[in-house]
Amino acid sequence: MNFSSKLLENAVAEFAKLPGVGQKTALRLVLHLLNQDKPDVERFSHAISKLRNEIQFCRVCHNISDLQVCEICASPKRDHSLICVVEDTRDVMAIQNTDQYNGVYHVLGGLISPMDGIGPSDLQVDTLVERLKGNDVKEVIFALSATMEGDTTIFYLHKKLKDFNINISTIARGIAFGGELEYVDEVTLGRSIVTRVPYENSLSK
Amino acid sequence: MNFSSKLLENAVAEFAKLPGVGQKTALRLVLHLLNQDKPDVERFSHAISKLRNEIQFCRVCHNISDLQVCEICASPKRDHSLICVVEDTRDVMAIQNTDQYNGVYHVLGGLISPMDGIGPSDLQVDTLVERLKGNDVKEVIFALSATMEGDTTIFYLHKKLKDFNINISTIARGIAFGGELEYVDEVTLGRSIVTRVPYENSLSK
Repeated sequence: MNFSSKLLENAVAEFAKLPGVGQKTALRLVLHLLNQDKPDVERFSHAISKLRNEIQFCRVCHNISDLQVCEICASPKRDHSLICVVEDTRDVMAIQNTDQYNGVYHVLGGLISPMDGIGPSDLQVDTLVERLKGNDVKEVIFALSATMEGDTTIFYLHKKLKDFNINISTIARGIAFGGELEYVDEVTLGRSIVTRVPYENSLSK
Repeated sequence: MNFSSKLLENAVAEFAKLPGVGQKTALRLVLHLLNQDKPDVERFSHAISKLRNEIQFCRVCHNISDLQVCEICASPKRDHSLICVVEDTRDVMAIQNTDQYNGVYHVLGGLISPMDGIGPSDLQVDTLVERLKGNDVKEVIFALSATMEGDTTIFYLHKKLKDFNINISTIARGIAFGGELEYVDEVTLGRSIVTRVPYENSLSK
């Protein structure tokens, strides 16, 4: 693109580095910001810079937090013997929104992905093992994506954790509530027949 | 959404104000920035703030520029008797990329849109009239979107400019080069028959 201004070109180039944002979208977003009042743009720019510089991660579960120990880990109302292992903070938010889980979390910060050069040492694996040493934890639930990376990570973690005297489980896989059978992929449908559950257990509460 | 951090929530809220960016996309973008190095994020934040605070608009054509008079308006190689009226800087870039136009531009900064509360006084209309008073301009080309807003703006500007001794034209409308006839909408196809051109004029150069 032929920019009439270096300032404009720089801002567009920075926006275009974001995932899923191409040059044209970046230009549209930048021109939108140019039309906003200066204090609004300053607030936008400041929020990002402040987030990156002041963000903290919970010392216990490694979720994003404004405190040294996050609200969930600090809460006495939650079941600290139950740890749900997730990829990132989005998954914590998604599970929290279900109102079906009262345990605590452990945020890995990613999934094992040799293609992207992400190995176990890049994730919060050692800190998870450390949390299990106190004998207070009874169960670890893996709530990871049902992808190659998720399965690899579960396989690796299972090997690491199997010598501890704890239950290890994964979230159930099957057809979604409200899902129409004819649109479900074969693998999911096949596995959901093999891992069928008694009728009484299948009702949503 | 239940955010575990106020800083995170603020940054997501700011991103979600951008056009076409919802809460989920905003969260994805913010988490991407969190994974980047601090200097990279600082550069992103700085580019936006600097753009908004230091941006200038060409005194002549009102295009975005780093100088008081933009490169196009300052160039002696361009035909200053030919003014192409466009909505914003994106259109200047699009026309410049065609390499088919050697005149100068006039950037309105928007289109007349009563629904959005944008009237002629919000656009660079008076400055366009001012440019025509010097008797140097021979032709004004309207290169505006073929929408209700674009047509309204052309109608308004035509009334304003018709007393000057200049040619007024609009860019040609019709089916796109490479376009398949069966997919062209009826209005465009109908008008392109009515406004047909002699074969010799229709060849792309």
